[in-house]
Amino acid sequence: MRDSPTPRTRPPRTIAWTEDGEGIRILDQTELPERHAERELRTVEEVEEAIRNLRVRGAPLIGITAAMGVAALARRALREAGAGGLPPEELAQRIRAWCDRLATARPTAVNLSWALERLRGRLGEPASEPVDLVERLRSEAQAILDEDREMCRRIGEHAVDLLRDGGAVVTHCNAGALATGGIGTALAPIYVAAERGWQVRVFADETRPLLQGSRLTAWELARAGIEVTVIADNTAGALLSREAPDIAMVGADRIAANGDVANKVGTYGLAVLARHHGVPFYVLAPTSTVDLGTATGTDIPIEFRSPDEVRRGFGRPTAPPDSAVWSPAFDVTPAALVDGIVTEEGICRPPYGQSLLEAVEQARARRARSRAASPS
Amino acid sequence: MRDSPTPRTRPPRTIAWTEDGEGIRILDQTELPERHAERELRTVEEVEEAIRNLRVRGAPLIGITAAMGVAALARRALREAGAGGLPPEELAQRIRAWCDRLATARPTAVNLSWALERLRGRLGEPASEPVDLVERLRSEAQAILDEDREMCRRIGEHAVDLLRDGGAVVTHCNAGALATGGIGTALAPIYVAAERGWQVRVFADETRPLLQGSRLTAWELARAGIEVTVIADNTAGALLSREAPDIAMVGADRIAANGDVANKVGTYGLAVLARHHGVPFYVLAPTSTVDLGTATGTDIPIEFRSPDEVRRGFGRPTAPPDSAVWSPAFDVTPAALVDGIVTEEGICRPPYGQSLLEAVEQARARRARSRAASPS
Repeated sequence: MRDSPTPRTRPPRTIAWTEDGEGIRILDQTELPERHAERELRTVEEVEEAIRNLRVRGAPLIGITAAMGVAALARRALREAGAGGLPPEELAQRIRAWCDRLATARPTAVNLSWALERLRGRLGEPASEPVDLVERLRSEAQAILDEDREMCRRIGEHAVDLLRDGGAVVTHCNAGALATGGIGTALAPIYVAAERGWQVRVFADETRPLLQGSRLTAWELARAGIEVTVIADNTAGALLSREAPDIAMVGADRIAANGDVANKVGTYGLAVLARHHGVPFYVLAPTSTVDLGTATGTDIPIEFRSPDEVRRGFGRPTAPPDSAVWSPAFDVTPAALVDGIVTEEGICRPPYGQSLLEAVEQARARRARSRAASPS
Repeated sequence: MRDSPTPRTRPPRTIAWTEDGEGIRILDQTELPERHAERELRTVEEVEEAIRNLRVRGAPLIGITAAMGVAALARRALREAGAGGLPPEELAQRIRAWCDRLATARPTAVNLSWALERLRGRLGEPASEPVDLVERLRSEAQAILDEDREMCRRIGEHAVDLLRDGGAVVTHCNAGALATGGIGTALAPIYVAAERGWQVRVFADETRPLLQGSRLTAWELARAGIEVTVIADNTAGALLSREAPDIAMVGADRIAANGDVANKVGTYGLAVLARHHGVPFYVLAPTSTVDLGTATGTDIPIEFRSPDEVRRGFGRPTAPPDSAVWSPAFDVTPAALVDGIVTEEGICRPPYGQSLLEAVEQARARRARSRAASPS
């Protein structure tokens, strides 16, 4: 594709169809960095469990997982129905039930319901045979995956010039390849910079309680030959005052219409520190993360996690066993602290009410054009 | 002493002499909250190891430990010398060597060298017999412990009216009973408020990498019947924006002459967040923490900790084993972010150059008066 240097290894494959197409195979991210373990999901319970327990995580990837999961379940249901087949309406009803169930597996990321809505949208089209319905779902889920890969690449290209050769980035949680089907969102420009041969140093917050920064971001960047340094979350202030990184880049789980950003808890604290130090703070996420139906951040539902993730996070007690714990999975960064939101359509600037709307419409139009060009 | 309600249990005893006075017995804080284990220290190696590996920690307590340790070592050396005895000059030389060695066990807390200086000061006095020297050291170390208990109580009394019945405090690390010989520094007003029968809710940052907040602060407060809620460090921003605590209270490892405060890493980030939310930010520490010889925070040496505390903090890998880690133990909060510094002499307000100097001089004068009243 290009003759510039490429990363030493490709980003890890996070998700694929099983050979028979009746299941999906995921990289089980709860096992990283100790083991690179794949896991097959063939029932709605397994898909739901994998999303709920963060075996797959990252807003784009959980949308992809749910969509591919439902498409695979539909194929399996049709095969199991045997020669008699399934009336299209019964199959559609089952599919709707799976979508309903998976949509609630995690409440904050809007991509999950966005991806499932796309599948539901295909149910409404006139069906000749159940097999057509099944193939239509598979093709929609595959499109979500393919578009995600392209989306990551485009975010990376749009954002790479926010970096500089020899510079340093601080990031939170994992909005990398492991959060997507491609090269990630917040980490995408870092991969693109590495392809250009730039040296970019990444500081990764470890991201308690589940340590997506130290377990996942450090793992995938090191694997790609990119220099990464882990810090405890509470060290970000010292880092900004002593090491002066050039920029902070994070992903998003949901972006409200006004540009308020829900992302992994700790993002807001990093944004406040970045502003205090005059370090630009950017959010990188696909337009599918933008929820125009949510006016501001205060309307975003916030998931709370189990106290034991904090109390016994690593197999041994790290707090008295009956301690109260307050553990929101996400926080909301007000738009006023965000210097730019990079989507696959380019860099949105304040006021976000306008620029995000344009990006979403542009993405829709592009998708419509590309469908018209190659209908599935 | 008072007829108001008292906490259900007294704060834990962190340190004591062994029965023979030739060693010290510490509560091994690395075993908390799993085990309440005591450990005897009878050699300089053991005392140094306990300080270096945070079996005892907290700026006041490491000063006390070093002082009591040296006094106990001196008594043991004298007994082991047997009938022949030890020439006073040889004993003094050994004591100086122990002081030199322990002074470097941890670099940031100034109380360590402050306590050892007090012991050294007693070496200069005219010695009749080695046994007098030994008793003099023991009495100085005991005075450091007793004064620390009184200091904690006074800090608590001075600061309690910064709290309110029904209010909430956020704190970082452990500046409680476990960091001192008494009821703590940052937690002292909370114990005093509990004695008054006030309900005060405490939010404790877990404080990676060594989790002094979740392991120690949560343990000692719960044990005293005080309501405590643990949060991951990166959750402080969400806490301040959603739960609106009244005040932030932290301890200090060293306070520069201008009021810049070195404390456990993460303190600075909490201070920036507190200021962003208009939440008052107070530092509570004895005057022994004030280092008038250090002009500003940039002159304070910062200890860096082992990468493995972050990479395999809980007995299992939490980052790739060869990850780079940037792990300062402390950060510096500029005086401009500190609304008040509470010492045993009262509440210092900006400009701290003046108010801290006055507090230090007041404490010296009070100590001199109390010595004159009861010479040891």
